[in-house]
Amino acid sequence: MGQRPVAVIMGSQSDWDTMRHAVEILEQLGVGHDVRIVSAHRTPDRMYAFAKDAKAEGFKVIIAGAGGAAHLPGMVAALTPLPVLGVPVESKALQGVDSLHSIVQMPAGIPVGTLAIGKAGATNAGLLAAAILATSDEALAERLSAWRAARTDAVAERPS
Amino acid sequence: MGQRPVAVIMGSQSDWDTMRHAVEILEQLGVGHDVRIVSAHRTPDRMYAFAKDAKAEGFKVIIAGAGGAAHLPGMVAALTPLPVLGVPVESKALQGVDSLHSIVQMPAGIPVGTLAIGKAGATNAGLLAAAILATSDEALAERLSAWRAARTDAVAERPS
Amino acid sequence: MGQRPVAVIMGSQSDWDTMRHAVEILEQLGVGHDVRIVSAHRTPDRMYAFAKDAKAEGFKVIIAGAGGAAHLPGMVAALTPLPVLGVPVESKALQGVDSLHSIVQMPAGIPVGTLAIGKAGATNAGLLAAAILATSDEALAERLSAWRAARTDAVAERPS
Amino acid sequence: MGQRPVAVIMGSQSDWDTMRHAVEILEQLGVGHDVRIVSAHRTPDRMYAFAKDAKAEGFKVIIAGAGGAAHLPGMVAALTPLPVLGVPVESKALQGVDSLHSIVQMPAGIPVGTLAIGKAGATNAGLLAAAILATSDEALAERLSAWRAARTDAVAERPS
Amino acid sequence: MGQRPVAVIMGSQSDWDTMRHAVEILEQLGVGHDVRIVSAHRTPDRMYAFAKDAKAEGFKVIIAGAGGAAHLPGMVAALTPLPVLGVPVESKALQGVDSLHSIVQMPAGIPVGTLAIGKAGATNAGLLAAAILATSDEALAERLSAWRAARTDAVAERPS
Amino acid sequence: MGQRPVAVIMGSQSDWDTMRHAVEILEQLGVGHDVRIVSAHRTPDRMYAFAKDAKAEGFKVIIAGAGGAAHLPGMVAALTPLPVLGVPVESKALQGVDSLHSIVQMPAGIPVGTLAIGKAGATNAGLLAAAILATSDEALAERLSAWRAARTDAVAERPS
Amino acid sequence: MGQRPVAVIMGSQSDWDTMRHAVEILEQLGVGHDVRIVSAHRTPDRMYAFAKDAKAEGFKVIIAGAGGAAHLPGMVAALTPLPVLGVPVESKALQGVDSLHSIVQMPAGIPVGTLAIGKAGATNAGLLAAAILATSDEALAERLSAWRAARTDAVAERPS
Amino acid sequence: MGQRPVAVIMGSQSDWDTMRHAVEILEQLGVGHDVRIVSAHRTPDRMYAFAKDAKAEGFKVIIAGAGGAAHLPGMVAALTPLPVLGVPVESKALQGVDSLHSIVQMPAGIPVGTLAIGKAGATNAGLLAAAILATSDEALAERLSAWRAARTDAVAERPS
Repeated sequence: MGQRPVAVIMGSQSDWDTMRHAVEILEQLGVGHDVRIVSAHRTPDRMYAFAKDAKAEGFKVIIAGAGGAAHLPGMVAALTPLPVLGVPVESKALQGVDSLHSIVQMPAGIPVGTLAIGKAGATNAGLLAAAILATSDEALAERLSAWRAARTDAVAERPS
Repeated sequence: MGQRPVAVIMGSQSDWDTMRHAVEILEQLGVGHDVRIVSAHRTPDRMYAFAKDAKAEGFKVIIAGAGGAAHLPGMVAALTPLPVLGVPVESKALQGVDSLHSIVQMPAGIPVGTLAIGKAGATNAGLLAAAILATSDEALAERLSAWRAARTDAVAERPS
Repeated sequence: MGQRPVAVIMGSQSDWDTMRHAVEILEQLGVGHDVRIVSAHRTPDRMYAFAKDAKAEGFKVIIAGAGGAAHLPGMVAALTPLPVLGVPVESKALQGVDSLHSIVQMPAGIPVGTLAIGKAGATNAGLLAAAILATSDEALAERLSAWRAARTDAVAERPS
Repeated sequence: MGQRPVAVIMGSQSDWDTMRHAVEILEQLGVGHDVRIVSAHRTPDRMYAFAKDAKAEGFKVIIAGAGGAAHLPGMVAALTPLPVLGVPVESKALQGVDSLHSIVQMPAGIPVGTLAIGKAGATNAGLLAAAILATSDEALAERLSAWRAARTDAVAERPS
Repeated sequence: MGQRPVAVIMGSQSDWDTMRHAVEILEQLGVGHDVRIVSAHRTPDRMYAFAKDAKAEGFKVIIAGAGGAAHLPGMVAALTPLPVLGVPVESKALQGVDSLHSIVQMPAGIPVGTLAIGKAGATNAGLLAAAILATSDEALAERLSAWRAARTDAVAERPS
Repeated sequence: MGQRPVAVIMGSQSDWDTMRHAVEILEQLGVGHDVRIVSAHRTPDRMYAFAKDAKAEGFKVIIAGAGGAAHLPGMVAALTPLPVLGVPVESKALQGVDSLHSIVQMPAGIPVGTLAIGKAGATNAGLLAAAILATSDEALAERLSAWRAARTDAVAERPS
Repeated sequence: MGQRPVAVIMGSQSDWDTMRHAVEILEQLGVGHDVRIVSAHRTPDRMYAFAKDAKAEGFKVIIAGAGGAAHLPGMVAALTPLPVLGVPVESKALQGVDSLHSIVQMPAGIPVGTLAIGKAGATNAGLLAAAILATSDEALAERLSAWRAARTDAVAERPS
Repeated sequence: MGQRPVAVIMGSQSDWDTMRHAVEILEQLGVGHDVRIVSAHRTPDRMYAFAKDAKAEGFKVIIAGAGGAAHLPGMVAALTPLPVLGVPVESKALQGVDSLHSIVQMPAGIPVGTLAIGKAGATNAGLLAAAILATSDEALAERLSAWRAARTDAVAERPS
């Protein structure tokens, strides 16, 4: 696999507070990644170039986070054959319901694997990207299983 | 104004049953138009080319209809300085709420003037496009006012 | 075009915190405007007079913001042939869903071009009004394109 | 009380299938009424004239039904001091949620007593109008109580 | 009319912060009223006794506020022929949508005239109760019209 | 246990099509039951009498189904110390969301164990009533376990 | 009955702030209970073991709280014949609507008696568990009735 | 890769009408797969065994479809390190909103890549599974790209 198999992109600086949770997981699991701001609406040319080149750049999986009328994950998915994971960033007025609808309700033909709204979704996008890469990387599969086992062990028997 | 100041685009053949109501209004008001299928997800290159060339082609206003994770209106709006009107096409599972959220909740910087879900919205997109053109076309303004007056006159006094 | 082609109206003083974002855009783009409080519910006579006279006063586009059972944009649209843009102001209990429904779900015949809930919607109403005027004002079209280009340039490559 | 103390108005012919249930109740209870189509959007002048004259015409209570961005009940309430009852007519895409929000979420100062979505709401608008008139009409109060008692008696002990 | 034609009831002490806005309006308009805590769920016997006796006690209109699975307005309406106005009190998790549904969606036969969620709804319940009483009290009708005129006059021309 | 430990009540004849699924389960499991129409809104006195006497009549569990502003389960729960299970019957306009909110969002102090909207919920109300009775009836516990085991066995390996 | 007839389980430590309200009620009513963290997602083996052994351990009723895609109550219900009560814990983005849907919308065959979202639901789960046990424990039934009577007595006549 | 790298599982026979669209895509792309009914609620032991053995059986990706309180995708994800894709099957009362919430809102730690509600989501689950496998199977990547190109070519220029 390439040095940076995962691209983590987001629509704006304000999404970083959510999307850094994806990056943290990738770092914990030793998965190479590149982080960029790519706005479907403000930088559509950058988005086109990024998505069209993503496979040639060596990326294997793309994680895209956006809020409101969140077009970034779906548009990138339309422009690359790579698997795309979408993270609905929580919006102010509608609490991320709009982001969720805009990401998950893709028409037949262009899938976006959508995670939960907000921080949990970003964390899980990192984990799902790792699980995808682990389908052909047994060492990563072992690191991922160890990460999961450690989390299971950390659950207390009783609340305190 | 150009011969075809309004472009009416839609994401798929199945949107035509809704979007033809926009075309009918434009025809009633004598507003030139061009109708095309432009899918943000299945034909992203066609969408890019269309949106980037739209102003040079002589279009003044774009009406875009789409359903589900409806990215067409917002992506076209990101790629052209022309005013873009969006029509949420009714979706099967969520009744068009997903389409509405995906079209109306655009981030600051890239507006889409959104109309009602479904047929009423398509009709109104035609009317709003005409009203926009009428800001610099007094003859059209008169045809539009006559259209509205005729509709007012058609309202019966009592239900039957 | 007249000296003040855009009217920015709102239902109450409390909407100003949202609607001033429309005014800021118009000022940045050098678009003349007039700002008024016009309440559909508390000052219906003022609303009638405003809407009926708006075209004669020289307005080309009307931006109307309101919250809750937001009747102002739709009622003004019923009383003037000018294009009307609606901004759903965020409400306390329902987060602006009620405002959005009351503005966007207009019946066939009376369009309101609806923007996003809250501040982003107000900003975009200013931009869409400018884009509408720019269909017959090439100098404004250039200012608008420059505004958009500057925004594109301002997007950083990576989050910080 | 006047000969026709209740006005039953609706936004369009298509609302009649719902609103006739209000009229049926008024007829059962012997309450005089007048039925009219008054569209806030298509006939705003008719609406203004109706609402401003309603008290002088001798109406005591107004029942208004409308769907979608349902502005009729609230606008009439803004133009008359009479009590206004609103019936959200079921809409196609959003099942009447938009109608409900547009009618019930009135700002402080202009009340609309809102009933259930659809036929049940129309029936209940008729009953509530009767109950309002019955506060100063003991004969009507007795007819209303008899109507209610008969309905109670009609409830079977067991399903069949 | 009796000395206290309006009963203002609520399900719990915590509803008072909302419902006092109804009382303030009644006081401004000089409408006699009585305020009580009557819980459908915790004090069902008190509720039964209150509702069954309400007409004999001289009440003409009942205002009932409740939150969550808000049964108070509907149950009182089932037990008295008097007009009942319902105020959905804002709930913590669902923002009053549950309260609104529980109050407004009454079955055919038992109406509750429902106002907006929260404080605006409480204010409007007071105003609607006054409008109902004013159908047979011209002095009150004049006070109500003056209240409304003063509010209209208080709307500024421009935001500040 | 009494001969008829479970009462199955519903707000109207029209709820029977849903609630008969609860009865079918009780019959399959050999649990005695009584079925009645008890309307909170149309027959409040019958409801009071039923709920107040339910324990003395020998009932152990009450299943109550209702739709719209569904007050029956919660009001019965306020009037009896017996466990009450609520079934939200699907409503026309809001698909049972209103019924669900009106039943499940009970305030602290008066619980209603709420099942799914519609037929599945009625079936499960029957099963949960049986499970409750089975906490002190080992023979019933065995019948219930057998019923569940048979259902597990009936799941095919592959779709056809 | 066993010494600890009620198990109170929750998906994570963060649910304890909600679920302790169930425990407080059980303590007030003198109902033995055991409290554990059992995560369907992080500790699925612990969940399986818990649910499969619950009846043999002497539990009579299980209270399970969880948030978001809340699978704990339904999965435990699939693995034990005991009655299971579910408490939707309020979630950040969707305010507990996701938790409610995930718990209450169980398919026919596997019931979960669902309580209100959040703290009120936890309190009521404790009360409903007690009511279930009271169907075969008259001393507990008396303590429960006394608890309810004290709460009724505590409702003030008027707000302060 | 194994002969059957993709497992397509669903909660019941009734989900097959939706999930067969995933299978059709896998067949078109020549991706080996196995189809099974695995119910989280009715056959929890089968689900445990399936999920725990899935990796050892040679599966690389799991597609799971379920409706209502849809626990299958998330529970399988909790029991296997393989990537799991979830398809919300449309439900009767809530149109699949409940299914969507139950699948997508997974807590941090256990991801489910969620697709659109219904048939489009099933189709896209097949495509996303193929894209995941294609990250280490260039021949499949080429078949997938050809499939996508053919679909792009099939979009007509204009509606008919």
